[in-house]
Amino acid sequence: MSQFLQLAGFRAGPDGPRVSGHRGARGVLPENTLEGFAFCQTIGVDSIEFDVVMTKDRVPVVVHNHTLDGSLARDASGLWLPDPGPRVAEMTFQDLRACDIGAANRATEYGRRYSDQARLPSARVPTLDEVLAFAAKSDLYLFVEMKTDPDAPDMEQERRDMAQAVVAAVRKAGVANRVAMHSFDWGILDVCRKIAPDLPTSYLSYVTKNPQEEAQSADRTVEPDLTQLTMSLPQAVADAGGQMWCPFFMEVTQEQVEEAHALGLLVNAWTVNSVRDINRMIDMGLDGIVTDFPGRVQDCLLRRNLK
Amino acid sequence: MSQFLQLAGFRAGPDGPRVSGHRGARGVLPENTLEGFAFCQTIGVDSIEFDVVMTKDRVPVVVHNHTLDGSLARDASGLWLPDPGPRVAEMTFQDLRACDIGAANRATEYGRRYSDQARLPSARVPTLDEVLAFAAKSDLYLFVEMKTDPDAPDMEQERRDMAQAVVAAVRKAGVANRVAMHSFDWGILDVCRKIAPDLPTSYLSYVTKNPQEEAQSADRTVEPDLTQLTMSLPQAVADAGGQMWCPFFMEVTQEQVEEAHALGLLVNAWTVNSVRDINRMIDMGLDGIVTDFPGRVQDCLLRRNLK
Repeated sequence: MSQFLQLAGFRAGPDGPRVSGHRGARGVLPENTLEGFAFCQTIGVDSIEFDVVMTKDRVPVVVHNHTLDGSLARDASGLWLPDPGPRVAEMTFQDLRACDIGAANRATEYGRRYSDQARLPSARVPTLDEVLAFAAKSDLYLFVEMKTDPDAPDMEQERRDMAQAVVAAVRKAGVANRVAMHSFDWGILDVCRKIAPDLPTSYLSYVTKNPQEEAQSADRTVEPDLTQLTMSLPQAVADAGGQMWCPFFMEVTQEQVEEAHALGLLVNAWTVNSVRDINRMIDMGLDGIVTDFPGRVQDCLLRRNLK
Repeated sequence: MSQFLQLAGFRAGPDGPRVSGHRGARGVLPENTLEGFAFCQTIGVDSIEFDVVMTKDRVPVVVHNHTLDGSLARDASGLWLPDPGPRVAEMTFQDLRACDIGAANRATEYGRRYSDQARLPSARVPTLDEVLAFAAKSDLYLFVEMKTDPDAPDMEQERRDMAQAVVAAVRKAGVANRVAMHSFDWGILDVCRKIAPDLPTSYLSYVTKNPQEEAQSADRTVEPDLTQLTMSLPQAVADAGGQMWCPFFMEVTQEQVEEAHALGLLVNAWTVNSVRDINRMIDMGLDGIVTDFPGRVQDCLLRRNLK
């Protein structure tokens, strides 16, 4: 795998695992905002993770769900969007940009989940280009999560369009040397490898879909049925041609980490937020920890005299 | 008190109390750093609170303790300062500036207190001029806490020197319209009123000195013996000529808030960090809440549909 120089920024070092800010630093600032990404740069984490969805007019934007969630967005008049809200794929970029995502809606479960999350006086959904232009001036590595639309009429077309748009944006911004192409949709990672063989691919997995787990989102995701695998997850990622495996943190075992490393894969777990879970992930020798609370992970590492 | 236009920025509004970031946002980022103050501006809090101490060569710097604390500062070679560390009054600005305050020392009680506090790759003690130049470009109001040195050979000289230096810096930066002169040392506030009668004065109080309380610091403070007062604290502040009273939050009662308001004083409590205490302070109708966790206070206000 040594041809992927990007991997140096995602691999654990002598100072322990890499720290990656999930959707920026969601425990501290509203998710997927330029302000959240800037916070990550200020505190010197290794990488950020963010989500790409396409608007109706095919602008790649950085937003998590396929519907603009009424739990975090208000319209131009300041009213919370309805729930369920409009599909991003049916909104123009101009429509989307009119919405304010500077404060989560505390009347919703989501809005009450991160009780230290500050508000922003106003914030807009950033374009992928804007996030990458920011990243180009930083030294952050990037997990670019591509979220193909489960309702797209032609999934192969959807994958090609999104992969091409993301790769083009990455090249335009000049950040290809710090990017991992990241998705639950293992199919789009096949496309990425074909059109951009120099970019490493990073395979997300979430098998059990326990509705009690925080990982669960109301949003639907394009992904293979991993309960039907006839081999281990690390082996499946390696066979697919991936360089990184990114399991839900409650689903990864020490044996799997060792197997993945033996296969030449890096392992990054998401989304690890409690001190107890963070320490367990550090002990397991992961390459990276994706977290809503990057300061908390830094604190755990500092208490061990790591970075 | 209506001659002090600055007070508009410190007085509670229809959206509840003002939010003030204590030493920046100490729960989120290392204290008294430009990065912490910038975070407060990003999230749109109303004001910041910070501490001014003088170096040996009489440069006003923004640092909390009279000794540069080994719990938060490393020397130029990266080693933690000894404990007790050098007195700021005996360090040149150049000496002080060589120290790195980007991460608290997790081997100390202080360094383990804020477990979500992120690190900064490197950070320096800022000068008062630097903080005020930043503030001039922001819309933040400022609690400028003057920390006169209890070991100064001539306290009247110390007070005059510090008050003059701070007032000069405030005027030079053009932020007099957003400043409150703030101190535990009620004596320096007398000096401030004489040399800068246009600046409101803000009286800190901490009476009981319970060693179990988080308010307690190893650092000594110049302050009157408030256990000897023959009148109420609000009355004493009003008699002294102050515009704001800033009690330790565990020591303020509803009756005192009402008395202070009847006397024309504003009331800002410090340092209010737990959700329970924050809500109690909101219920008491304070003008402002000084907190290490400004996002948490914003969350409490948003849950009440306030700002």
